[in-house]
Amino acid sequence: MTRPLVLHPDRLFSSDPIQRGIARTLYTEIADAPIISPHGHTDPAWFAEDQPWDDAASLLLAPDHYVFRMLYSQGLSLDALGIRTRAGAPDTDPRSAWRLFAEHYKLFRGTPSRLWLDHVFAEIFGFDMALEAATADHYFDRIGEALATPAFRPRALFDRFRIEVLATTEGAHDSLEAHHRIRASGWNGRVISTYRPDGVIDVEHEAFKPALARLAQLTGEDVYGWRGYLAAHRKRRADFRAAGATATDHGHATAQTANLSPTEAEALFARIVGGDWTPTDAELFRAQMLTEMARMSLEDGMVMQIHPGSFRNHNAGLFASHGRDKGADIPMRTSYVDTLKPMLDVVGNAPELTIILFTLDESTYARELAPLAGHYPCLKLGPAWWFHDSPEGMRRFREMTTETAGFYNTVGFNDDTRAFLSIPARHDVARRVDCAFLARLVAEHRLAEWEAVDLAHELTTGLVRKAYKL
Amino acid sequence: MTRPLVLHPDRLFSSDPIQRGIARTLYTEIADAPIISPHGHTDPAWFAEDQPWDDAASLLLAPDHYVFRMLYSQGLSLDALGIRTRAGAPDTDPRSAWRLFAEHYKLFRGTPSRLWLDHVFAEIFGFDMALEAATADHYFDRIGEALATPAFRPRALFDRFRIEVLATTEGAHDSLEAHHRIRASGWNGRVISTYRPDGVIDVEHEAFKPALARLAQLTGEDVYGWRGYLAAHRKRRADFRAAGATATDHGHATAQTANLSPTEAEALFARIVGGDWTPTDAELFRAQMLTEMARMSLEDGMVMQIHPGSFRNHNAGLFASHGRDKGADIPMRTSYVDTLKPMLDVVGNAPELTIILFTLDESTYARELAPLAGHYPCLKLGPAWWFHDSPEGMRRFREMTTETAGFYNTVGFNDDTRAFLSIPARHDVARRVDCAFLARLVAEHRLAEWEAVDLAHELTTGLVRKAYKL
Amino acid sequence: MTRPLVLHPDRLFSSDPIQRGIARTLYTEIADAPIISPHGHTDPAWFAEDQPWDDAASLLLAPDHYVFRMLYSQGLSLDALGIRTRAGAPDTDPRSAWRLFAEHYKLFRGTPSRLWLDHVFAEIFGFDMALEAATADHYFDRIGEALATPAFRPRALFDRFRIEVLATTEGAHDSLEAHHRIRASGWNGRVISTYRPDGVIDVEHEAFKPALARLAQLTGEDVYGWRGYLAAHRKRRADFRAAGATATDHGHATAQTANLSPTEAEALFARIVGGDWTPTDAELFRAQMLTEMARMSLEDGMVMQIHPGSFRNHNAGLFASHGRDKGADIPMRTSYVDTLKPMLDVVGNAPELTIILFTLDESTYARELAPLAGHYPCLKLGPAWWFHDSPEGMRRFREMTTETAGFYNTVGFNDDTRAFLSIPARHDVARRVDCAFLARLVAEHRLAEWEAVDLAHELTTGLVRKAYKL
Repeated sequence: MTRPLVLHPDRLFSSDPIQRGIARTLYTEIADAPIISPHGHTDPAWFAEDQPWDDAASLLLAPDHYVFRMLYSQGLSLDALGIRTRAGAPDTDPRSAWRLFAEHYKLFRGTPSRLWLDHVFAEIFGFDMALEAATADHYFDRIGEALATPAFRPRALFDRFRIEVLATTEGAHDSLEAHHRIRASGWNGRVISTYRPDGVIDVEHEAFKPALARLAQLTGEDVYGWRGYLAAHRKRRADFRAAGATATDHGHATAQTANLSPTEAEALFARIVGGDWTPTDAELFRAQMLTEMARMSLEDGMVMQIHPGSFRNHNAGLFASHGRDKGADIPMRTSYVDTLKPMLDVVGNAPELTIILFTLDESTYARELAPLAGHYPCLKLGPAWWFHDSPEGMRRFREMTTETAGFYNTVGFNDDTRAFLSIPARHDVARRVDCAFLARLVAEHRLAEWEAVDLAHELTTGLVRKAYKL
Repeated sequence: MTRPLVLHPDRLFSSDPIQRGIARTLYTEIADAPIISPHGHTDPAWFAEDQPWDDAASLLLAPDHYVFRMLYSQGLSLDALGIRTRAGAPDTDPRSAWRLFAEHYKLFRGTPSRLWLDHVFAEIFGFDMALEAATADHYFDRIGEALATPAFRPRALFDRFRIEVLATTEGAHDSLEAHHRIRASGWNGRVISTYRPDGVIDVEHEAFKPALARLAQLTGEDVYGWRGYLAAHRKRRADFRAAGATATDHGHATAQTANLSPTEAEALFARIVGGDWTPTDAELFRAQMLTEMARMSLEDGMVMQIHPGSFRNHNAGLFASHGRDKGADIPMRTSYVDTLKPMLDVVGNAPELTIILFTLDESTYARELAPLAGHYPCLKLGPAWWFHDSPEGMRRFREMTTETAGFYNTVGFNDDTRAFLSIPARHDVARRVDCAFLARLVAEHRLAEWEAVDLAHELTTGLVRKAYKL
Repeated sequence: MTRPLVLHPDRLFSSDPIQRGIARTLYTEIADAPIISPHGHTDPAWFAEDQPWDDAASLLLAPDHYVFRMLYSQGLSLDALGIRTRAGAPDTDPRSAWRLFAEHYKLFRGTPSRLWLDHVFAEIFGFDMALEAATADHYFDRIGEALATPAFRPRALFDRFRIEVLATTEGAHDSLEAHHRIRASGWNGRVISTYRPDGVIDVEHEAFKPALARLAQLTGEDVYGWRGYLAAHRKRRADFRAAGATATDHGHATAQTANLSPTEAEALFARIVGGDWTPTDAELFRAQMLTEMARMSLEDGMVMQIHPGSFRNHNAGLFASHGRDKGADIPMRTSYVDTLKPMLDVVGNAPELTIILFTLDESTYARELAPLAGHYPCLKLGPAWWFHDSPEGMRRFREMTTETAGFYNTVGFNDDTRAFLSIPARHDVARRVDCAFLARLVAEHRLAEWEAVDLAHELTTGLVRKAYKL
């Protein structure tokens, strides 16, 4: 007996009839609003080339580290799931990888991956029975057939998803060639880049040297001198703005910033590029560069995003065999109050600057982030991130930030995903959770219903457009 | 079209009919109980002089850093809001400041400031339409008219609010002259002081030296010798008790305590007053003084409050231009287990001593504070503080402390405010949130309803009277 | 007037009718499932000897530090409660101790102790009126009479409680004699041991030297040499497995692990047994031993439990007078991401190994523990522990771990208790809270009801059997 797959229209709303009724009303207001995706990791080449994807496993399983990390945690082999190693993709039949996934689909009960995948299955592919061992082949075949049709090519789905704007993320040393091809193609989908210079800032990254060489090549600047290095950043920021970018992004291990004198900064940079640096130097340089980036944002108007606190590649064995982004990044305790102060001493009171803070450490929501954003004109709070981009995580974000920072120091939702097909599902979950939160405030007479309607629009489209200048 | 202003009688109760019904019953029991305010920052001169306040902006906006920090965070100018700088009050028309506030009132949606202000507007001033741009002048005029009447003078409002006792906070170097005038006036309102000696303990405070000189003058003791310094504290504690004080308060940056030998303490004090101290000495001296204050509390029976964990004046630019208390104090991660041990080794097992612990770091509620208070006879938990004095914050406080510390190791509510008119609103919010929490326990059959009635009285008046010896 | 004692059949379920109805259905499925208790601290001698317990106070009050710590925190004397000191049990009449407890029973309102005790009173002893001063003697007499009957002997209660397996915890230097007697007696109750070697690993424990000597005696190994010491562990692990043990347990102050070379480890051990060690050596040795224990678990299949983060014997005065386990252990902030890495670098990717992580620091649930367990094949999450083994604590555990780690990286419930009579109560609370959590997911359409039924069985009996190999 197979089980039905049903997306209940009231999913993620409170079961309390009063709250549920209000949540329905609010959701009706914004359910069909366009998708604005100001931060994510889809591949711009998809939209430049508009080629069909191959099959269910290589589209939905192999690239999604949220999904295969859970399967791996329960003892499944990454090879059997078809996950690429450093030596290349294993010789695994996609259908057998998909069957393995289907057999273990119950592992995702209670997780957001389950909500997103069921949404993809039901809404995008039209399935009405649940994924399980017995339906694995049916799923694999039907998804494969669909992907071969024009309606499932990247640009068609982009339109079907009602995406108003989609930001990708590229390194400072990226040519932006895919973005140029999108523009040259005449297609009118708005896919924009985001400037992420970590690769040319983090000297502890294994690819720092070639990244810096590439930066030199792309800009013609002497990137081995402090002045030339800063000039190269300015040039590339302009290149990114030409590719539609309105924002930068910074994914350092900590939120440490610094405020060195020009002489100190130059001397530090000389150690960094000279190879004569300590780990303390490396951290200090990353810290100083956040302040430099904030200064440049004051010049050129780009919004700055700071995503600190991930211990990358925690699993030494897996990193050796499979490389980065294999589900082994683990959040760390993160501080903001001391660490951001040097940068805030420089730019904190500038209302024309926008710095969006993210965290993987929820203990900072009420203690540090909401008080900081509820005071400094330049600071805003990014939405619940990564492990916390989930119904409970988003609820905690609202419960722990709203009373101090309000709604207006937040910036709407980020899907932050490589999984293009999950974008509508992720935005839908966020909209539902926000409506459920607002409905509780209304039901408890802490907010008028007309205010909640106004806020539902702000949380869906208003704040994100304003914060990211879209 | 203006919007109505309505305070719903069920506000802050669960929308679940079972819980709401129980909450109503509980709230009816304590809604009209007198206000006991054992910790706050109102100005005793108001009650000594009983002069009328000026206007809406200077009463409700300019002194309330909860309010203007939110407006500042959204890019509004403090000058335009009429906030004092170090150079004095800006030359801003109070009406235009009020209009600016009214235009941006929606920023407070979802915050406790909104709940408190609406309560002040509706209950104290009788407004029935919401504050917004269109009603700004109406509000300003009507509040101004009211403030000119005898019914809105400080003592009249004190009576109208049914305040049984109101504690203010004064420094060890304060003459208590306003308190003396209150007593001399023959008015029977009970306004008492609280002994807050931080100014003569924290050598890193910019005004330490003059404060110490003033302490010498007020006590006639040789405050530059260890013995005389302690004797001066004892004298001033007695002065404060004569001004009604039953408690002391200590707002150090950390909860660090120390247990030095008399010889070590004397040597440390010599470095502190000699100017030959390091930051480590400064911290150690604050730490030692908490233990000394605890010892004196054992002698004189004063209740001790510890409020650690605020990074004061985080915004360097704003501190330079505007000084202290401008909304730029940010909570820090705080530890209690190691830090309190030296003091607890000395006084921890004394059941006749009461030390009330507060925190801005909610991660310590269940992990450190409830276990400590659930064991040591001298320790009690203060209510949710400052950024956490909000419906969600108070709910989290109960959810995270009750199971380990119980209700009886807590001490009722503190309004902790400078905003005198908000006192009834703040107590009302706390009473409602406590009733809602108790109602959930009853509705889930974790507590009998008669026990919840008993506890509602304890949380409102019983525990605070006992803990603060009022 | 005495008050009735009623255990409501819907206790701990949401009062929302939809959720409550689902919770009831789920609970009906598993309410009568056998008790599997894989981790606890009951005394195996009870089951070896099957002697009657003495009276209410010595059974329910004196050994339960959850109970007497709360009474102590409110100023009651431990002597008056009959709590043993280092000099022996005080000369306190058990009946008067019980009366004191009964008079102060209201202190437990809102705590899990109250839920457990009421369950014991109503279900095991059949009381229908609440404990209070007026019923103290009635309780004391009736419990005393019951304990004198065969039906209240340890083995009879073991059967009545439907215990399928009960694990106790013994030190590496324990003879396991009580376990041998249980087996020799022919009784068919399954009481098994757990290997807890902290006493022969923690050189900072006051009894390290005699424990090590006892280990030498029990194994005949040269435990003062690194090789012999490891061999002694292997022998004792085999002894424990012969006494039914399937698991080890490690209660270090931190979760620090290490990965020293054999030469470094040998040199470190020489310092430890030579008495020439620093606190850093002591911590490093504990850290290295976790990795050694993990390696041995790979050899012999024993499940490994890590319980870090308790500051033992925080109250210096009480430790001096009364010794260990007197309610003065306080949780500390705990880290897992950096600390576990050395061990995980060695064994992290072994799916045949099971390491169960516990915490007293809830801020690590969503930030560290769920991400680690949601990735590493060897890691699982133990249930909410100690101070967090409570309705709110268990709810937070599910809300903060499920979305990242799923349900299948958790291991069911541990009662972790010395209070044998409370075992059914504790399992009942856990089952109810899990059903309430699952009911919310179903009511919010995040899980199908048939899945929740399946999960209710997994959380009650399935996962614990699998994780602990029972």
